[in-house]
Parts: sequence; structure tokens; C-alpha cells
Amino acid sequence: MNAFEKIQTRYGEISDLGNASALLSWDQQVYMPPRGAAARGMQLATLSGIIHERMTAPELGDLISEARSEKLSGDREAFLRELSFSRDRSMKLPATLVKEMSLEESKAFEAWARARKLNDFSIFAPHLSRVIELKKQAAECWGYQETPWDALATDYERGLTAAKVEKIFKPLREATVKLLQQIQTRPQVNTKFLDQKWDIDRPREFGLRVARDIGYDMGAGRQDLAPHPFCTNFGHGDVRITTRYSQTSLLDGLFGTVHEAGHAMYEQGFDPADARTPLAEAPSLGVHESQSRFWEVRISQSEAFWKHYYPILRQYFPGQLDDATLEEFYRAINIIEPDFIRVEADEICYNLHVIIRFELEVRIFRGELSVSDIPAAWNDLYKKYLGLDVPNDSKGCLQDVHWAYGSFGYFPTYTLGNIYCAMLVEKMEKDMPQMWDLVAQGQFAPVLQWLRANIHKVGRRHEAADLIERVTGQPVSCDALIRHLTNKYRHLYEF
Amino acid sequence: MNAFEKIQTRYGEISDLGNASALLSWDQQVYMPPRGAAARGMQLATLSGIIHERMTAPELGDLISEARSEKLSGDREAFLRELSFSRDRSMKLPATLVKEMSLEESKAFEAWARARKLNDFSIFAPHLSRVIELKKQAAECWGYQETPWDALATDYERGLTAAKVEKIFKPLREATVKLLQQIQTRPQVNTKFLDQKWDIDRPREFGLRVARDIGYDMGAGRQDLAPHPFCTNFGHGDVRITTRYSQTSLLDGLFGTVHEAGHAMYEQGFDPADARTPLAEAPSLGVHESQSRFWEVRISQSEAFWKHYYPILRQYFPGQLDDATLEEFYRAINIIEPDFIRVEADEICYNLHVIIRFELEVRIFRGELSVSDIPAAWNDLYKKYLGLDVPNDSKGCLQDVHWAYGSFGYFPTYTLGNIYCAMLVEKMEKDMPQMWDLVAQGQFAPVLQWLRANIHKVGRRHEAADLIERVTGQPVSCDALIRHLTNKYRHLYEF
Repeated sequence: MNAFEKIQTRYGEISDLGNASALLSWDQQVYMPPRGAAARGMQLATLSGIIHERMTAPELGDLISEARSEKLSGDREAFLRELSFSRDRSMKLPATLVKEMSLEESKAFEAWARARKLNDFSIFAPHLSRVIELKKQAAECWGYQETPWDALATDYERGLTAAKVEKIFKPLREATVKLLQQIQTRPQVNTKFLDQKWDIDRPREFGLRVARDIGYDMGAGRQDLAPHPFCTNFGHGDVRITTRYSQTSLLDGLFGTVHEAGHAMYEQGFDPADARTPLAEAPSLGVHESQSRFWEVRISQSEAFWKHYYPILRQYFPGQLDDATLEEFYRAINIIEPDFIRVEADEICYNLHVIIRFELEVRIFRGELSVSDIPAAWNDLYKKYLGLDVPNDSKGCLQDVHWAYGSFGYFPTYTLGNIYCAMLVEKMEKDMPQMWDLVAQGQFAPVLQWLRANIHKVGRRHEAADLIERVTGQPVSCDALIRHLTNKYRHLYEF
Repeated sequence: MNAFEKIQTRYGEISDLGNASALLSWDQQVYMPPRGAAARGMQLATLSGIIHERMTAPELGDLISEARSEKLSGDREAFLRELSFSRDRSMKLPATLVKEMSLEESKAFEAWARARKLNDFSIFAPHLSRVIELKKQAAECWGYQETPWDALATDYERGLTAAKVEKIFKPLREATVKLLQQIQTRPQVNTKFLDQKWDIDRPREFGLRVARDIGYDMGAGRQDLAPHPFCTNFGHGDVRITTRYSQTSLLDGLFGTVHEAGHAMYEQGFDPADARTPLAEAPSLGVHESQSRFWEVRISQSEAFWKHYYPILRQYFPGQLDDATLEEFYRAINIIEPDFIRVEADEICYNLHVIIRFELEVRIFRGELSVSDIPAAWNDLYKKYLGLDVPNDSKGCLQDVHWAYGSFGYFPTYTLGNIYCAMLVEKMEKDMPQMWDLVAQGQFAPVLQWLRANIHKVGRRHEAADLIERVTGQPVSCDALIRHLTNKYRHLYEF
């Protein structure tokens, strides 16, 4: 075996351990009995210790140097680039800091949950300060140009900086705030007919049918119920999703299922030859989110989609949807209504929720905002962008878990996902002018095929912005997203 | 940390990896989508490679020597005894042989499945020969006194030899064959009322209720459906079972559930302080089986048990059991009827199925029986002991998977389980004369408590035969089992 082949073998095993770890986490959230938690925690810690040990092994470093002196194909170069990036990140962090972060994040999570329940930010504040302090230390270890935030964000979106995000988000924020104000002058949409009690099993059956129809391969996947919807991958041929359904909402479960199926179809579409290599991954969370949001928002909330599925949905719920026409139904599921909670937000408000979090994070890491001032700053921005008076911190700055886990730099990837998605859809429409007619006939294979060829099979060969530009021919900007939102909602709200 | 503490840390991680591996296998059998198999195979191989690497690490050997030079408590001595045994077994086998066995066993499994389906022993024969050959090589590596079979059996039941088993089984075989002949002269039992179509969900609900009632802690366990019923442990606080139910059998699912719950309650009863040590295990498969058979056969097929549960069972199946009295029901579920298939056998015939396999194995490993002669020898013994003419090899020597997996020496543990169980019950009856009255009132806690104190909490501190003798005051023999079978079935068949 030459040096590269030896690296492949070593990385294959690291990847196996990562997949084993992922299964342990999946089970923890889906099926583990309550008293299994302590042992599971130790199993996960042991696995991550071994992964760290193997990633940072000096022999692996020697092999990488040796392999780089050989003549390498583009794929092998990409393999080494990705491996080296992860390896360097691991090596730059002292083990003591890793351990301290993990301990503090567990404590911060507990404190956050209690604070949210009791609606008392002061319970969370000291823990949040500590987490931020440790994250700043980590950022110093990793290095950055302008703000420590940049060093953190690059974990989720390689090379992302606060300055870049600001440039991309500013026009989006301005256009969105304006669009929202225009919509709010228009007559309200009727959603009354959705306020019914729905059978608990039928939405699940319908959701699974749609997931299958759009191309989620159940021979290489499955759906389980869990309080928190997510997608997880245990290696090629086994990509699972979880969903939650409710009796009071007909469609949340469906859209959640389609969203997670979108993530899952992406991972099912990686090149099988890339299995157990760093190339069988998305280049970034933003690109991953572009796939889930594509199927959730652009497909399953489109008029074309419901042309096909509304008659079928009616059959699933006999008598319950007789009074609403297709057009009324389509309007109702696309209602725009500013509210406090991000995860329940509509397509327009969603990005404002994200932008608010991003702006606060950057101010925190530039030293312009102290932890104790977060609630006031939060409420201020909700008033400014969404016109809302936040009633309390539980519905405000305590709503999301991300900061407790130290996931700073994560939020922007949600909106980047929408931005990438809009750019991809414009290109898709150009390449396949008949695309929406096909969707209206329930034919999703050509669309999936397009994504497979342009995004899925590529895996992690290119970085996110590079990939999007290669596929669409355009540098990343929010223009396509603004065009989409403006067209769709001008039409829906008739202005 | 002193040497022993260092060993504890190392073994704790090995145990974590074993538990992770167990979860991967559980998922493979319960929830994994079909196309996940290839990746799962690699993950399991990687984990077992790391476990082997850590078990055989020279540093661990040095630490064991160092720890042995310290003054050790009895528990610590038992810890080192068990660890050294497993370590020596691993070290004595060359890696090439381990790999070859694993490959050959996979091939033999495929061949066995095809052979059984096509009822053609010749498909399986060459693979079986190869597996036996490799097992003989392994036995040479491990060493033995009389026959290579002894070196294999010790994996399942430490220190077991063919000579010991022969001595224990001979009187059982003779008594059982005689008992069976006596029963066959008696009038047949009516089981007609059990031949109904049963709702698929109700037996599961009833089974779960019984499992909970007898003491299976669902806060530290769960039941899933799987084609193959088994029990598996992912560390203290998470011991799961699987069961299969059928619409044509009211009770197979129940007895299977109680059997697996018996295994699970054993593992839930290990001392929490022994977690992540070699002491949190059964001393042998035979002892493990004594626990499952106790709840399955001695409790859930007893008259006392049904005094309590028959009225409840009737409520679960309104109208379907009105025609059968408690006595008729009790007779029907304990019917003795020789048949070809071990896993469907009654309490008396079961041991004869096991004894036949044991006798054949020993002849194979003593070089007295060639693979090609197995079918004839098999059919011969079925005629001799059970009075049956085996119609074909699929219902004969191809029915069990064990030999394909190279599990020679495993079968006797099934009957040893029954033997240990009978000995324990006699002691229990002496210690708790009111035991069967309690069972008839649905009170199982005192019985479970007795097992917890005498068997469960002890874990692997003593070897199997030693443990049974310590608890019962008797050396292992089949006398108690013969007494039980004779009393129970003389009463039932009135002779």
C-alpha cells in the first residue's frame, strides 16, 4: 500500500467509528430507555476519544506529508484537503479545553432548559458567559482575521466570515422588511378550515407517501418518531429521518418529514465510491439546508405540488377538507404572519429570525454586546424587523438551544440554505423549463436527477460558495431569493 | 492510579466498545434498512478489531502482572481472572485464523440457508467440513485434555468437557426416554380450542403486561419486534428484548417474551457497582438459560401462574376462551408431543433434541463421525430417543444455524440451563415454602428477590458449577430436573 491507500484505510475506520457514534446518538433520541443515559454517555465519550486519538495520531500526519509528495488526482487532493482541515482543527485545540467546553456546554444546556421553563434569563446568563469565554479561547487556538466569530463559523460553512455574511444578508433584510410591511397592508388569509382535530396516524401515512414519491429510498432509510426531527446517516445505504406529528396540525408533520427527507435524499445521493471518505459529506450546513428547504419550501409548499396532492390529501381526510378549494388551501399554507418563534416561522419571516441571531452573535464576539444586554437587544431587533413586542424571554432570546451548545456561527447557515436553494431553482428552471409541469403531475424524478448530478454526487469535492457558483454560474448573493419571495408573495397577496 | 485502576479504565473502554457493538447488532436485526448491511458489516469489523487490539495490547499484560503482585480483594481477583481468561483466548488465536473463521462462517451460513431451503445437505456439507477443520485448529491453539470439543465448549461454559456432560446427561436421557414412552400410552390432550385466529396486537399487550408484572423494568429496557427473539444489553440500565408474535398462536409470543424477559431481568440485576467490569456478566450460558427457563417454563407454564392469569387472559380475548376450563387450558399448554423441531419442542422432548446434537458433536470431534454421515446418524438418534422418522434434512440436521456459525459446544448449555433451574427451584421452595401461593396471587417480587440475591448480584464472581453448588448445596446433576419432570407429567398424564 502506498501512503494514500494507508490513509484511506485509517480514515475508513475513523468513519466507521463516527457512524457507530451516530447510531448511538440516534438511538438515544429515539428508542433508549430512560435509565440507559449514563452508560450511553460513557460509550459516546469513549468513541469520541478514540476518534480524536486516531485523527491526531502523528503517523497519520506523516502519511499525509508523504502522500502529498506523490502525484495526486483531483479527488485525492480533495480527500487530503478535507482530512487535513479536520485534523488541524482537532490538533489545535488542547484536550483540556475540549473537555472544559464539553462540561460547560452540558451545564449550560441544563441551565438553559431551566431558564426557559422558568422564563428567567439570569439563570442562563452566567453559563452563557462562560461558554462564550471558552469559545473565544477556542477561536484564538484556531486563529482568525477579523473576529473570533469567523473562526467558529468555519466549522459549519468553511471560510465564512461575519463580513461576508453581512454583505450577503443586508439587502435580504432590507427587501424582506419592506415586503413584510407591504403584505401587512393586504387583507388577511383564511386558515380557519385547518383548525380541526386530525387523526394521529393519517398525517404520518400521507407524509411517508410523499417522502417516497419525491424519491426518499426507504430501502436505504426509515422514519421514526422523535420529539426533535432530524436526519442522520450511518453510512451509505442507511440514512434515517425522525418526525413528530400532532393532532392539532395537519401539515407541520408533513413539511417536517419532507424537510428531513430532503436532507436524507442528499446523503443517499453521495457517490457510493466515496463511502468512508471525507468526500461523502456536504461541503457545508448551508448546502445541506439548501436541499431540505428545496423539498420543504420550494416543492411541498408550491402551487404545482398541491395541484397533484390536494385531491389525494382530501382522500386521506374524508369530509374534512371539502369546504376549502385548492387555491384557498394553497393560500392558507403560505400565510405570512410575524410571530416570536423561529421554528414556526413562515418563509419570509424565517430569514429575519436568523438575521437577528446573526447580528447579535457578531456584536457579542466583537465585544459590543454583553450577555446581560442580550434580552434588550433581542427585543429591540424583533420590534425593528418584525414589528413585534416580545412578551418574555422564553418566547425571546431563550427559545433556541444553539448558544447553550456553543454553536455560534450556525444560525446563518439556515438562511444561506434558502439563498443557495433559490439560486439552484433559477438554474433548474432554466435547464428544465417543464419542471413545474412535472411537479404538478407528481413527477419528481427529473428534479431529483438534476440535484443528484449537480450537487449530491459532488459531495465535498468543492467548498460551498465554489460549488454554488460552479453550478449556477453566479457568485453567491441573495438576489434570487429576493426575486422568488417577491414574485410568490406579490402573487399570493395581490399587490 | 495504581495498576489495577489503570486496568479498570482500560477495561471500561473495552466494555463501552462492546456495548456499542451490541447496539449496532441489535439495530441490524431490528430496524436497519436492507441496504445498510454492507456499511454495518464494516463498522462491526472495525469495532471488533479495536476491541481485539486493546484486549491483546502488551501494556495490558504488563499491568495485569503488576496488579497481581499487589494484595487484591476477592472481587479484584475475580476481575483479573475473567479478564485474563478472555485475553488469553484472544492472544492464543492467530489473526489469520480468526479472519479465516469469520469468512468461512459467513460462507457456511449462506450455504446452510440455501441447503435448508432446498433440502439438500450436500450444499452445506463441504462448508461444514471446513468450519469443523478450522475449529479443530482453534482448539489446538487453545489446548485441551481429551477432545478438541472441550476447548470449544469452554467459551460458553467454562471448564465444561464432553466427559462431564456425558456423565450429567446420561441419566437424564434414560429417564426422559422412559417418561416419554409412559406418556405416549396415556390418552391425548385436547388443544382444539387453541386453534383459532388471534388478534395480532392483544397477545403483545398481554405479554408486555406479564413481563412488567414479573419484574422486567421497562425504564431500563424495551421490547421490539424481530424475526429472531433475543435479549441484549447495552450497559447497566438498558437491557432490551425482542419478540415475535403470530396470529395463529396465542401463547408462543407470550412464552418467548417471558423467556427473553428472564434473560433481561438477570442482566438488570447485576450489581451497578460492577458496571463496565467483567463481573457484570453471567458465569456461563447455562446459568443465563437457567434464568430465562425459570420464568418461561417453571413460572409461566405452571398451574399457579394460570390460576392468577387465566381470568385475565380471558378478558384480553373476550369469548374466545369461554369453553376451556383452567385445568383444560393448563393441560393444553403443557402437552407432550414429540416432533422434529427443537425450538418448538415441549419441556420433556426439548432435552432429547439437545442431547442428540451433543452426542453428534462429540462423535464429530472425536473423529468417529464424518460430515457426510451426519444426516443418517441424526435420523438414527431421532428414531431411537424420540421415536420419530425424520422426513427430510430440512426438518432434521439442517434445522439449526449453530454449526454453520461454528458454535460447537453451545447446545448443551440449553439443557444445563434446565438442570440448573430445577436445582435452584428446589432450593427456592425450601427457602420460601409459600412460593407457589405467592405466584398464584400474581406476586413475583419475593421470587425475583431470591434470584437477585443468590444469582444476579453475584455476576461472574464464581464459575457456573461452583455458583450452583454454593447456592443449592448440591453438586450439579440432573436429579432435580428428573424429579420435576416426573412429578409434573405424572400428575398431568395421570400415571
